Amino acid sequence: MTTVSMSREQVVELMRAGQTLLIAGFEEVEAEGVALVGQSAVSFATSSWERPGGGGGTARVLTEGVVFERAGVNVSAVHGDAVPPSLYHDRPHLKGAPYFATGVSMVLHPRNPYVPAFHANYRYFEAGDDRWFGGGMDMTPAYGFDEDARHFHTTLKAYCARHAIANYQTLKETCDRYFTINHRQEMRGIGGIFFDMLEPQGDDGFERGLAFAKDGIETILAAYLPVVRRRMAMPYGERERQWQLYRRGRYAEFNLVYDKGTVFGLQTNGNIEAILMSMPPLARWEFQIALEPGSPEADVSRFLQPQDWAA
Amino acid sequence: MTTVSMSREQVVELMRAGQTLLIAGFEEVEAEGVALVGQSAVSFATSSWERPGGGGGTARVLTEGVVFERAGVNVSAVHGDAVPPSLYHDRPHLKGAPYFATGVSMVLHPRNPYVPAFHANYRYFEAGDDRWFGGGMDMTPAYGFDEDARHFHTTLKAYCARHAIANYQTLKETCDRYFTINHRQEMRGIGGIFFDMLEPQGDDGFERGLAFAKDGIETILAAYLPVVRRRMAMPYGERERQWQLYRRGRYAEFNLVYDKGTVFGLQTNGNIEAILMSMPPLARWEFQIALEPGSPEADVSRFLQPQDWAA
Repeated sequence: MTTVSMSREQVVELMRAGQTLLIAGFEEVEAEGVALVGQSAVSFATSSWERPGGGGGTARVLTEGVVFERAGVNVSAVHGDAVPPSLYHDRPHLKGAPYFATGVSMVLHPRNPYVPAFHANYRYFEAGDDRWFGGGMDMTPAYGFDEDARHFHTTLKAYCARHAIANYQTLKETCDRYFTINHRQEMRGIGGIFFDMLEPQGDDGFERGLAFAKDGIETILAAYLPVVRRRMAMPYGERERQWQLYRRGRYAEFNLVYDKGTVFGLQTNGNIEAILMSMPPLARWEFQIALEPGSPEADVSRFLQPQDWAA
Repeated sequence: MTTVSMSREQVVELMRAGQTLLIAGFEEVEAEGVALVGQSAVSFATSSWERPGGGGGTARVLTEGVVFERAGVNVSAVHGDAVPPSLYHDRPHLKGAPYFATGVSMVLHPRNPYVPAFHANYRYFEAGDDRWFGGGMDMTPAYGFDEDARHFHTTLKAYCARHAIANYQTLKETCDRYFTINHRQEMRGIGGIFFDMLEPQGDDGFERGLAFAKDGIETILAAYLPVVRRRMAMPYGERERQWQLYRRGRYAEFNLVYDKGTVFGLQTNGNIEAILMSMPPLARWEFQIALEPGSPEADVSRFLQPQDWAA
């Protein structure tokens, strides 16, 4: 039991340190944006919550920044006497087993329409004798740039290559499948990597999983921030803003209709505010939008189908 | 078979005439709003569609009006060789039976935050030997006014009282239950009436159902338009606009997470644009919104729980 408890502490510490690291990175970019326009700086507010059943979390949210219209980074660690149905559905032998879950998750909705939105999470579960990791990251541009997509996926491919337990191609395809808006027959964005129930085998399985998660959290900054910096000062007008809001409508559709974490959270009386922190700050729907052929708005569709960006 | 075909034609004609009547009513109010501010008038555009499996419809949509930020009134009449799973789930004996469905549906999202949003639909099904009606209407204010809620529900109660086949209290409670955002533990708005699978018995059952639907479609104007006229010129500012957008986020949550028609339509490759015409033109989400106690924004919560407005 000592090892279990030590591994839990190690992962929770990893998630908390990850939250601190990431917020420092996001606040640095936000400060650069503030310096560009000369507005006053906004930083992440902190909101902690407890779960009646056991555990809790800390949500850190930046609202109405210069670079980020909204950015949220959550850490949680919860436990319970019996695994929820969503877990024992896939693993019947866990029915009735006590469980522990911890993770860090984030969603960033930038203000400039040329800066893509970003989502990532890393999580760890213990239930019965099982232990596994999950997570990944994906990027959602309103306007497509080949070099951004290549940078993002190349960075993720190199990250996976550093870990024997990870195969970029598999994780990328899992991500492409998961982040698909079925009723639109398009992906939410350009994908990324995604993995569920990763259980590294062997005596050092836990350590290898932990190392993969730790490197992943650190890779978030390398994968996303160069794209933010490249696009955040690009001039834009009302046309680009309206298109961004329209694309955010698709983001809202994905989250409310398909995202397993969101749908499960809403159905099980989770922390609604923490769950829906992923929603865009402002989103628009239009009836039968007409796109000019060859326009930058029409061009984004080719980014929303699976592509080999890290070739 | 002649009677079946005659009844179908009668209902389709009712739905089409209803669409024309309602659009005339909505355009009249829109013209009054235009006259108030002196802008140029916007009218309903027409977009017809065909269903590959059989049938089709006509969507009529007003975009960026003065009174209505978006308003859509759809009519459809579709048929198929075998009832979809959503129908035979409730009526197993219909599995494999050919079906016919027609209806008129509408969603209005006003611009002024003091004018409530409105939704209604009336529909008719034939499958195997079964024939039934469904429908209702509900109103969704961003700011609550007792007199508006009383007017709306009193009008609906009087409408139901004109028909032996309808019981206001039952239909009102069905509406309260259906339009509940479970994860928020609040209703989408102040409710209204709602009925599903109404099958009037007897030789004149069809005629009585048709009369109830016809009167209902006409009652829409009497129930909603006086509220629009009372509120549409009320001055408002950025605070009220932002609150309206925030409340529209709840509307989007209900439609994408709970509304059976929307969820079913998305899952079965329906006409996405027609299905999502119900989405608000612009919606906002905020993390842990803080409402001033006693403010008009805080006051709306009492309108979002079941109440006897027609007492």
